[in-house]
Amino acid sequence: MNIAVLGTGIVGRTHAAKLASLGHDVTIGTKDVKKTLAETEPDAMGNPPFSIWQKENKKVKLVPFAAAAKHGEIIFEALHGMIAVEVLRTLEIDLDQKILINISNPLDFSKGMPPTLTVSNTDSLGEQIQKALPNTKVVKTLNTVGALLQVNPGSLADGDHHIFVSGNDTKAKTKVIEILKEWYGWKHIIDLGYITTARGTEMTLPMWLRLWGALGTGNFNYKIVTSD
Amino acid sequence: MNIAVLGTGIVGRTHAAKLASLGHDVTIGTKDVKKTLAETEPDAMGNPPFSIWQKENKKVKLVPFAAAAKHGEIIFEALHGMIAVEVLRTLEIDLDQKILINISNPLDFSKGMPPTLTVSNTDSLGEQIQKALPNTKVVKTLNTVGALLQVNPGSLADGDHHIFVSGNDTKAKTKVIEILKEWYGWKHIIDLGYITTARGTEMTLPMWLRLWGALGTGNFNYKIVTSD
Repeated sequence: MNIAVLGTGIVGRTHAAKLASLGHDVTIGTKDVKKTLAETEPDAMGNPPFSIWQKENKKVKLVPFAAAAKHGEIIFEALHGMIAVEVLRTLEIDLDQKILINISNPLDFSKGMPPTLTVSNTDSLGEQIQKALPNTKVVKTLNTVGALLQVNPGSLADGDHHIFVSGNDTKAKTKVIEILKEWYGWKHIIDLGYITTARGTEMTLPMWLRLWGALGTGNFNYKIVTSD
Repeated sequence: MNIAVLGTGIVGRTHAAKLASLGHDVTIGTKDVKKTLAETEPDAMGNPPFSIWQKENKKVKLVPFAAAAKHGEIIFEALHGMIAVEVLRTLEIDLDQKILINISNPLDFSKGMPPTLTVSNTDSLGEQIQKALPNTKVVKTLNTVGALLQVNPGSLADGDHHIFVSGNDTKAKTKVIEILKEWYGWKHIIDLGYITTARGTEMTLPMWLRLWGALGTGNFNYKIVTSD
């Protein structure tokens, strides 16, 4: 399948590599291809510059955002949360009627660590993206775990933990759930309901950050334990 | 031990009943004893009026907030989140140097369901209470699960799920962790750090509410699955 990944950070790269390894035709979108390729320093998290990663992932093509959005039948959105709405708004026509998997969270690192949320409580990034792209089928998911777990849940406790989906379009959610199961190996998926439920998953980020601090690792996830 | 529970709602009652059953001398504090006893209607959640509950829990004494605060060596705070700071501020002298277990969440039901939070992201109810009571040892815990699970975690999956503590005073947290384990039977407790980490646990409430909707039961909890 023709797939677009938007964002060249660690989340975007992780999905692009995994999707390419599954045989998909993957483009990864960025604002300025030349600038992204010219970066020579690791990012704030110590990840190598894109050009180094690209050498080991030659099948993934780096293109401008609009070209990626045109190419993808399904879009994996992994932008920085603070610019996601602004970027996506420019791609409205190319994303018309397509499924957009919104992975990014509205994290604001500008005020020090741990980051706060730019939007929460009475709104969410998932809802803001759906409003900016009224004819795109926005499904929020994977935003509650780290990048490596997102594409390889089986690496932790044989996959015995949960992931969540939020979205207004039932068929799109069914397709995304199929992708999560069949491509990535997620076993336990809870459909929370409409895109407004993205408020719930996005607001778990402050907890994730404190657990990361307490546990000393980001390699963890929630298992929802019920009586049934 | 002499214990005070503040708040006559379902959370306060559940703790008072459990603590009395363990042999403690429990008072439960309210604003206006006569008014609380005069209630004849079930509350919004369908819980019976206090006087009915009292008949089955005669050992628990209903007293004004200040008398309860004086009585308790340890305080279980289970007020409505929206009035908690206002009430506690009036009890500052009686709560001096004591451990206060802050269970309440800053839930605002005034704007319809699901409730939003009155404070989040850059502050928390736990922090606001600690600021209002600078000489009290505030420990936030139990706020991420329903009342019945709070005092009886073993009723779900034999207790194989997690609870969290946040607070600035290490000795107070050690004591609260001991209470959680020995009185209530919690097996898995994560110390998240300072009271600021209450932002993390309080902000999971919107997720709890959506999971409640998706699962059709409030009888669930998070198990933190890690690689270690």
